Amino acid sequence: MEKLKGWIKSIRDSKGLRFFAVTDGIKDHQLTVKEGTPIEGLPKVGASFIAEGEHSTTPKGQPEFLVSKLDIVGASDDDFPIQPKAHSDEFFRSVPELRGKAKKFQAIWKIRHQQTQAIHRILDHFGFIQYYTPIITHADCEGAGESFSVKSDWLDEKLTVSGQLHGEVGMSSLGKIYTFGPTFRAEKSTTRKHLSEFWMIEPEIAFCDLFEAMDVAEDLVKRVLRSVEAKSEYEFKQLGIDDKHTKIADIDWPRIKYDDICEKFGIKWGEDISSDMEQTIVKSYGAPVFITHYPKDLKPFYMKKDDKHALCFDLIFPEVGEIIGGSQREEDYEKLKEQMQSAKLDMDKMQWYLVTRKWGTVPHSGFGLGFDRLLMYITKAQKIHDVIPFPISY
Amino acid sequence: MEKLKGWIKSIRDSKGLRFFAVTDGIKDHQLTVKEGTPIEGLPKVGASFIAEGEHSTTPKGQPEFLVSKLDIVGASDDDFPIQPKAHSDEFFRSVPELRGKAKKFQAIWKIRHQQTQAIHRILDHFGFIQYYTPIITHADCEGAGESFSVKSDWLDEKLTVSGQLHGEVGMSSLGKIYTFGPTFRAEKSTTRKHLSEFWMIEPEIAFCDLFEAMDVAEDLVKRVLRSVEAKSEYEFKQLGIDDKHTKIADIDWPRIKYDDICEKFGIKWGEDISSDMEQTIVKSYGAPVFITHYPKDLKPFYMKKDDKHALCFDLIFPEVGEIIGGSQREEDYEKLKEQMQSAKLDMDKMQWYLVTRKWGTVPHSGFGLGFDRLLMYITKAQKIHDVIPFPISY
Repeated sequence: MEKLKGWIKSIRDSKGLRFFAVTDGIKDHQLTVKEGTPIEGLPKVGASFIAEGEHSTTPKGQPEFLVSKLDIVGASDDDFPIQPKAHSDEFFRSVPELRGKAKKFQAIWKIRHQQTQAIHRILDHFGFIQYYTPIITHADCEGAGESFSVKSDWLDEKLTVSGQLHGEVGMSSLGKIYTFGPTFRAEKSTTRKHLSEFWMIEPEIAFCDLFEAMDVAEDLVKRVLRSVEAKSEYEFKQLGIDDKHTKIADIDWPRIKYDDICEKFGIKWGEDISSDMEQTIVKSYGAPVFITHYPKDLKPFYMKKDDKHALCFDLIFPEVGEIIGGSQREEDYEKLKEQMQSAKLDMDKMQWYLVTRKWGTVPHSGFGLGFDRLLMYITKAQKIHDVIPFPISY
Repeated sequence: MEKLKGWIKSIRDSKGLRFFAVTDGIKDHQLTVKEGTPIEGLPKVGASFIAEGEHSTTPKGQPEFLVSKLDIVGASDDDFPIQPKAHSDEFFRSVPELRGKAKKFQAIWKIRHQQTQAIHRILDHFGFIQYYTPIITHADCEGAGESFSVKSDWLDEKLTVSGQLHGEVGMSSLGKIYTFGPTFRAEKSTTRKHLSEFWMIEPEIAFCDLFEAMDVAEDLVKRVLRSVEAKSEYEFKQLGIDDKHTKIADIDWPRIKYDDICEKFGIKWGEDISSDMEQTIVKSYGAPVFITHYPKDLKPFYMKKDDKHALCFDLIFPEVGEIIGGSQREEDYEKLKEQMQSAKLDMDKMQWYLVTRKWGTVPHSGFGLGFDRLLMYITKAQKIHDVIPFPISY
């Protein structure tokens, strides 16, 4: 005698048998109930149940659970919104409290979990230490975007837009660190690729130049793609995704300088590259592309810069755009001070950051990986709001 | 020819040799430099270096790195504050940008990483799916404490005090979930055990009663203790901690009802149990103690309650106090609605939470594990501010 617990997703009658498509939260099952089987309560789509019986196989060779007793634990009724029919993503976004009951979102939450696990496992394997940076902060990560203010009767600060500056403190003691936490942008999201609350992974590496940082970034993302693919076969089937992400993990990702991009794609030097143009570039190379060495004035104060360029890179992905931005950091005390002053930072408040270059400074580089953007690519979600459990304020 | 990169922690001269105690961020090493070895720059405590040479063994059998060439990469001087002498924790708290350079904090950050890894690995192993709950929210987790307000020109909400209520949404689709994220309390911290920003792990389990939840909590914490101990031998040595945490992982943790605690320890029924009294209780049992079934009026609206008691538990640890609070949740729609109304919640705003009981509700339980408290216990830190990288506003 075995037990199966879960929720009913659909009901079908055929020749004296009732078939329930159910989920236990992780996997889907078929309950097969013969006429006369004791049933407590009224089985309806959406109801929760505990079934006693045995795992078996249908005449057609499909797995089934032959029920000897069925208890309905939590009732449902015909008003239950997630009936077994097609719903629009837009409808689902309006009911976060229920959309996890749909196979599509169950699959996405599970893949989200596997992506998280993969990142922690891979970075740990390569000797990175997870370093916890503050969420409430007054650090000014110029260029990252507008920040939310946080207040209480004794505090007046901001929500972090990036853990990088604090992460550099961790790097200066542990050598190789990564942050894994929520970051915030106060611009109201008007695109399908932006959230005001999203998660970033920000590795920071001592004794590491721009090119080595790109090696780390490329290797990390490729390993994550392969790991998620290997662990989530079931979920990709649930999503109806057949093609292998690992295809792009098996090719080299070109690294092209901004100046060369300008020449090839007719962009005026000094201008930023639009999202549409990024997709044109990615398509023309048939692979994710690192765009490197942007004009220095387009990039924030903490980057190492030469006369014209910043030692930086963006990793542009098909469909979802930039999933990583990174750079070599300015490690020279005087040069950094100058760049901070030019950016009009509050030097008193940011003294702790400058001090990381005062004693034992090292050449170092790092990058920020947008967790939700990568997941959007992996799950082929149309909007980034579909890869987070709560896309509206709850 | 090998390379070693890192920072100098102390310098000692003896019989024509110079010995540098150094760290590469993860491990400590000894550089041994013979007279006449080419040195670029001035070696000082705090400076960063790249050394060429070979790993070897001293006549006394200690590992050393025999240097053939030493480059100072980032200089230091005598003003470098983290000199090789005793510093007070209080001093260290005033310089978060530098205290990671001290062995003690390097060790604590590494143990913090291992504790994170252990929690993710163990929960994944037992089929829990990490579920991401919002940081900016309007959810009211009554009883958890004051919240910070978050504002922008288009948003006016709060910082989460707990992911539990949203986590219950995840539970109702995935069965077994956990959150792992920052939570916030706006009360100004005045004790050695409270932070206004701290991390919680909040598992939530479908078809699970109070006692099964305690089983999960006890098993999880014991496994984390054992895993961290196994992975952090080196760091415990750095901290000078000899005794095994696993001692408490090998004994049963008593589960005592609040009513019995009152009788035994002379507490007036209906009153909360003070931190001091909690320590008296823990000492008298010689083990962490689950205190269960508190008076219902002491506990928040979401808990399942009988006439007198809430179906809840606190797990009290030696030294650090409560590291877990948990309960069976009220799964009945009408009873929960009543309890929400009694607690004067905004029923419109919290409708999404009540709805989790409308279709297919299940008995379920969960708990919140205070990440920083547990780490404080493991590292024997005197203040919780010593287990987070940034104890002051940066």
